[in-house]
Formats: sequence, structure tokens, C-alpha cells
Amino acid sequence: MLRQAFHELTLATRGRGLYEFTDAVTTWLSKVGFKNGLLTLHLRHTSASLLIQENADPDVRRDLEAFFARLVPDGDRLFVHTAEGEDDMPAHVRTALTAVNLNIPLHDGRLALGTWQGIYLWEHRRSPHARRVALHFIGE
Amino acid sequence: MLRQAFHELTLATRGRGLYEFTDAVTTWLSKVGFKNGLLTLHLRHTSASLLIQENADPDVRRDLEAFFARLVPDGDRLFVHTAEGEDDMPAHVRTALTAVNLNIPLHDGRLALGTWQGIYLWEHRRSPHARRVALHFIGE
Amino acid sequence: MLRQAFHELTLATRGRGLYEFTDAVTTWLSKVGFKNGLLTLHLRHTSASLLIQENADPDVRRDLEAFFARLVPDGDRLFVHTAEGEDDMPAHVRTALTAVNLNIPLHDGRLALGTWQGIYLWEHRRSPHARRVALHFIGE
Repeated sequence: MLRQAFHELTLATRGRGLYEFTDAVTTWLSKVGFKNGLLTLHLRHTSASLLIQENADPDVRRDLEAFFARLVPDGDRLFVHTAEGEDDMPAHVRTALTAVNLNIPLHDGRLALGTWQGIYLWEHRRSPHARRVALHFIGE
Repeated sequence: MLRQAFHELTLATRGRGLYEFTDAVTTWLSKVGFKNGLLTLHLRHTSASLLIQENADPDVRRDLEAFFARLVPDGDRLFVHTAEGEDDMPAHVRTALTAVNLNIPLHDGRLALGTWQGIYLWEHRRSPHARRVALHFIGE
Repeated sequence: MLRQAFHELTLATRGRGLYEFTDAVTTWLSKVGFKNGLLTLHLRHTSASLLIQENADPDVRRDLEAFFARLVPDGDRLFVHTAEGEDDMPAHVRTALTAVNLNIPLHDGRLALGTWQGIYLWEHRRSPHARRVALHFIGE
């Protein structure tokens, strides 16, 4: 019988960077006891992102961060919205360039992630934040 | 008992820019009477995007537009596909850099949007268009 | 009665470029016999993307590829993660800038794709790869 479940994770960041939370997601899925269905994640913020990326070599995260820092420079004179500092508007742009929603099927009790895929919260602000991620599952 | 519903919104744009339509979505959800489940939005076009972004300070939209205009310049000599004008191919690139799908859980009758999150149609063409957004809901 | 189905497609690429696979998706949907519901696609890799884009003029794909090649240059000295060659880290960045998940509602037996929308696998590596796409459907 199909059913659904909701949960909210709060993730504490220590400033800009990629934070993997795959384990928190799979722990919740085990607890609610689903075997097959669809997982959806929604980040309730506009200055951070959800990202599925390689979780093997940490240089990948370092290079992603370096590329986005060059593409969307802090303190760019183009920006008018600077109320919260020079990383304020770049954080919104980085969010627009990435995503705040993810979906991953669950099949035979395993998320359909590839061998090297991890689920990340990408904090775009320089200061620490508490970030809320809504989880939804529908399946059986 | 789980059930599903479909709807299509047609949004009229007045040319390039961000158009919030959160209210049209919540109005439909109230009408069909769901309390918990998953909302999916799909934009049926390749030269506009769906975006969740800050709906407080309008400067955020102004700065997003300014950044994308600089990143993907109209009339760039790189582009071959210019049949509909110098904003034609930049519109496709902007769409590739953003998204045409969104998902938002509904829990206890409220969309799991953050305090500052609004749902936007981002028109990338300079001229007015009628844009169709398919809505799907599954839940109860 | 709502039910769900899973499938996995393996797509062979011949190196960097956009490969349409809309037909493989609709063929599977016809076979499993759904009429209404939600299709989700998840790509199990971190150096390729899923993209919905125009499937009429092939110049659109040529221009998308040209833009991303200029935006994220192969061999950029910024990158430290170069184990698999000069297109290794650019492939991860291109994936972060696009998406690995897509959702499309199915209504009255038809995917809610726009007239010009096709479903593409975007291979970001120069060499041929076998790419796995997980499909999930829930509906009736």
C-alpha cells in the first residue's frame, strides 16, 4: 500500500562550503521503513543549494568552490542588494545557478545514487547558518 | 487515501524578468483540497525558467537579471542559432543554467517554502510571451 | 489505483555532446501502461547531466556546447582535480551548473513536454561512456 512521510532536517554550517548529509537521509529512510518509492528534498533557503556530487576526492569540492567564487565574485560592483555584506547577492546567484530541489528514487531499499554520488548542502554564505531541508517520501 | 490532480497555468509575461506566481499555485492547491503530498511544476518551454528565490527585496531580482545578462550576453558572436533575434540563444542558455522543474512538499496544508521563498517564472525573451506551466500533485 | 514502477536505462555516449532519449522514455511508459502520474529521472553520474531543451534546430545544441566550453574551459589552471585529464573537473562543474534530476507529469497518456522540448543526456567527458539513468513513475 502506497503511503507518504515527511521530515525536516536542520543542518548547521560553518560558513561557505559543501557539507555531505547522505547518511542523515538514509538513516531517516531506514527508520520510516520504506523499500520503494520517490524521495524529494527541498531546501528552505535562497542563499544555499542542494547538490549531488562526487564524494570520493575532496579536491572536487575545493574546485567547485573555486570555480563558483571566480564566476560570481564577492563584492562585485554589479550588485545593488548588499544589505548583508559582499557575499549576500553572490549567494543568491549561486543558488539560481544550482538547485534547491532534488529527487532520488528508492529501489529495493537502496537510493538510486551512483557509486560516487553524495547528497550535499552547499552553503554560499561566509558565516555559519542553520539550514532547513524538507524531506518527503512517497512509496511503500 | 492517496490521489493526484493536474492543472495547467498560463502566465502572460511582459518581456524579460522574474514574475512571481506563488499565489496562483496555492490558490489551486486550496481548491483541490490537498493537505499533504508533493507538488511538481514543469515549464513547457525552452527559453524561460522556473526559479525559487527571495521575494522580499526586489533588488535581488534586479541583480539576478543583471548577472545573467552579463554572463550570457545578447548578440554574442559565439552563437549560430539567431533565427529569432539576438536574445534567442541566450534565452536557451539561461534555461540550461537554471531549471524547468520544481518540487515542493505540502505538509499540514502549507507548502514547505522558506520564509523568503517565492515561486517565479523567469522570462528570458525580451518580448511578451504566454508561458504554460504544468502542475501535478500527489498526496491526500 | 495508484501504483509505481522502476526502470534503468543505459545510454552509450560517443563523447561530449547532447543525446536525445525522449523515445526510450516514452517507450517504457507505454509498456508499463500508465496514463496519469509523475515521471522522475535520475542520472547516476557526476560528470554528465540531464537536460530538457529544444529538439528542433541542432544549432541550439551546438551553441549550448560552445557556451559551456567557453564558460568552463578544459585544462583551466584553477583546477586541482585533474586525475582523469583536463576535461575531468570541467565535467563536474558543468554537472553542478545543470541538473541530474528531472520530473515530468504524464496526463491523459502524454508527457507534459512542450512542443519543442526533448529529454537529453548531456555527456561532459570527451571519451565515450555508458551512462545509467534511473526512471521512477508513480500514478495510474
